[in-house]
Amino acid sequence: METAKRKGSLLSFRPDIKVLDATLRDGGLCNDFQFTDAFARALYETNIAAGVDYMEMGYKASKAMFSPDKFGKFKFCDEEDIQKIVGENKSEMKLAVMADVGRTDFRKDIGDKKNSVIDMVRIACYVNEIPRAIEMIEYCKKRGYETCANVMAVSKAKDEEIDDALEMLGQSPVDVIYLVDSYGSLYPEQIAKLTLRYLEYGKKYNKVIGMHAHNNQQLAFGNTIEAASWGASLLDMTAGGIGRGAGNCSSELLLGFLKNPKFHLTPVLQFITDYLLPMRAQGAVWGYDVPYLLTGRLNMHPSSAIAFLREKRTDYANFYGELQDRD
Amino acid sequence: METAKRKGSLLSFRPDIKVLDATLRDGGLCNDFQFTDAFARALYETNIAAGVDYMEMGYKASKAMFSPDKFGKFKFCDEEDIQKIVGENKSEMKLAVMADVGRTDFRKDIGDKKNSVIDMVRIACYVNEIPRAIEMIEYCKKRGYETCANVMAVSKAKDEEIDDALEMLGQSPVDVIYLVDSYGSLYPEQIAKLTLRYLEYGKKYNKVIGMHAHNNQQLAFGNTIEAASWGASLLDMTAGGIGRGAGNCSSELLLGFLKNPKFHLTPVLQFITDYLLPMRAQGAVWGYDVPYLLTGRLNMHPSSAIAFLREKRTDYANFYGELQDRD
Repeated sequence: METAKRKGSLLSFRPDIKVLDATLRDGGLCNDFQFTDAFARALYETNIAAGVDYMEMGYKASKAMFSPDKFGKFKFCDEEDIQKIVGENKSEMKLAVMADVGRTDFRKDIGDKKNSVIDMVRIACYVNEIPRAIEMIEYCKKRGYETCANVMAVSKAKDEEIDDALEMLGQSPVDVIYLVDSYGSLYPEQIAKLTLRYLEYGKKYNKVIGMHAHNNQQLAFGNTIEAASWGASLLDMTAGGIGRGAGNCSSELLLGFLKNPKFHLTPVLQFITDYLLPMRAQGAVWGYDVPYLLTGRLNMHPSSAIAFLREKRTDYANFYGELQDRD
Repeated sequence: METAKRKGSLLSFRPDIKVLDATLRDGGLCNDFQFTDAFARALYETNIAAGVDYMEMGYKASKAMFSPDKFGKFKFCDEEDIQKIVGENKSEMKLAVMADVGRTDFRKDIGDKKNSVIDMVRIACYVNEIPRAIEMIEYCKKRGYETCANVMAVSKAKDEEIDDALEMLGQSPVDVIYLVDSYGSLYPEQIAKLTLRYLEYGKKYNKVIGMHAHNNQQLAFGNTIEAASWGASLLDMTAGGIGRGAGNCSSELLLGFLKNPKFHLTPVLQFITDYLLPMRAQGAVWGYDVPYLLTGRLNMHPSSAIAFLREKRTDYANFYGELQDRD
């Protein structure tokens, strides 16, 4: 790695770098996707004004597995619901949805691109689910969509498994392969090494490499720009960093950093004032907190930290002990 | 830089890395140094248990310039007040105080080391005040103290000025030269380059290089471990990241990262529960927030962000415009 070269400099900009706003999708994990149409429409307008390349509208989740009584429409992203927000999406911004391997009725719920305003399907899977992800990738490509593979929790995977996964995805028709730090456990030096590994396969098979970070150790932004500096070029972010647990790389940090003049920070600042502050005031909770640091540091799913906070516990030292007993 | 090598690996530990807890000093900027003795004593015990190398007790500020009616005792660090907390400090942890060039009556207020439990004086100055800092360094060395030079706001200084400052400090008797990101405006790539520049002089003149980061762009921890990875070896941190504005590198993040088995995270977690949560509940405010990101991004002092928040304003987009008008 020490002999690899970073791409570009801090003052120049790399036209290959694109950003994806995952506010509705990752943020939906904070409020069961109960966003109003006004919220989604304002975000859509914000993203267009900010120069965002892709906006993720939510999940394509199975209604057999998740009740529309409990979850808002952005958990399912029915075509008519999305069109109520974006019309025919006459902007240059592309729209994405995420579908989890094993939690989607993709053959039923994902139709032909020609009947949809959605441009890209992002397929999330664990490293042992790659064949099932590739089945979905092939399906979605045939229907006419761009596709991403978001391989989650690679901080738990062995190098050999990661290589296998990258080789299989390389040979698939997927467009983008994401480095995903699900537990917010990776340090920048590890991100650099993993990015270079992903880029090896990206170059061999002509795939874009993306980065999706979590903020458990206040490294979501730092890790995102670290990955970008080595060549990752589709960068996930959310307004205000909203997302499950410690949240994501904040749009305002990333747009403040990127030098491409097509990006604009001010619309996102206005959106935070108008929509995220009221959401917080109404009780939605996300962002860095000590319990998330602890699960991140131990490379664990944040669920126990979420439960700890829900119980209004503050005995961090005990919690840290419990986590280590459990590991 | 691309050909320089990082020191050590993520799993090994570097015995040269020491940490300095600046909670009372930088945190004192949040509450005018009105910490109780119980708070300071608990922090002292916490730091010893956590394996901290240096604990900064506060400032040596001029009482002619700052009224003891307004500021708590940790603004002044009178010997008898410090000894009330630490006794004769029979621990292995060393104690530090900070003195700002131009804001201290050092000849009056800093006596001989043999009559003091303080081990180190940290001298803070701007790049144009180096000769005045060196006067203080020479004074303090003669009195028997270890000394640091904390050159603030180098993100505003030209390369040539930084080189001049490092050359002058290199020739002085100072023990440690700090890289200080006062405005939280520097990105990890810049930190890497600056650290290597500081280390050049450090090697030439046998000085330790330290790192003091601010969290305006959620990079305080990331920048601290970036600097450490290239060879900085005295790392500042504060419990809960407490500090002016966006605060500092959090002790719990840094101690969770460092692999030296002498460091322990649990005592700091307990301190946060017992002392920092009540302090927050009583109204003390610190930590990352959008206005600090904006001053950091624009490489400005956080004072306008502090004022914005004090006025309970939330119109971030307007504020961003105002900052750019002002620049």
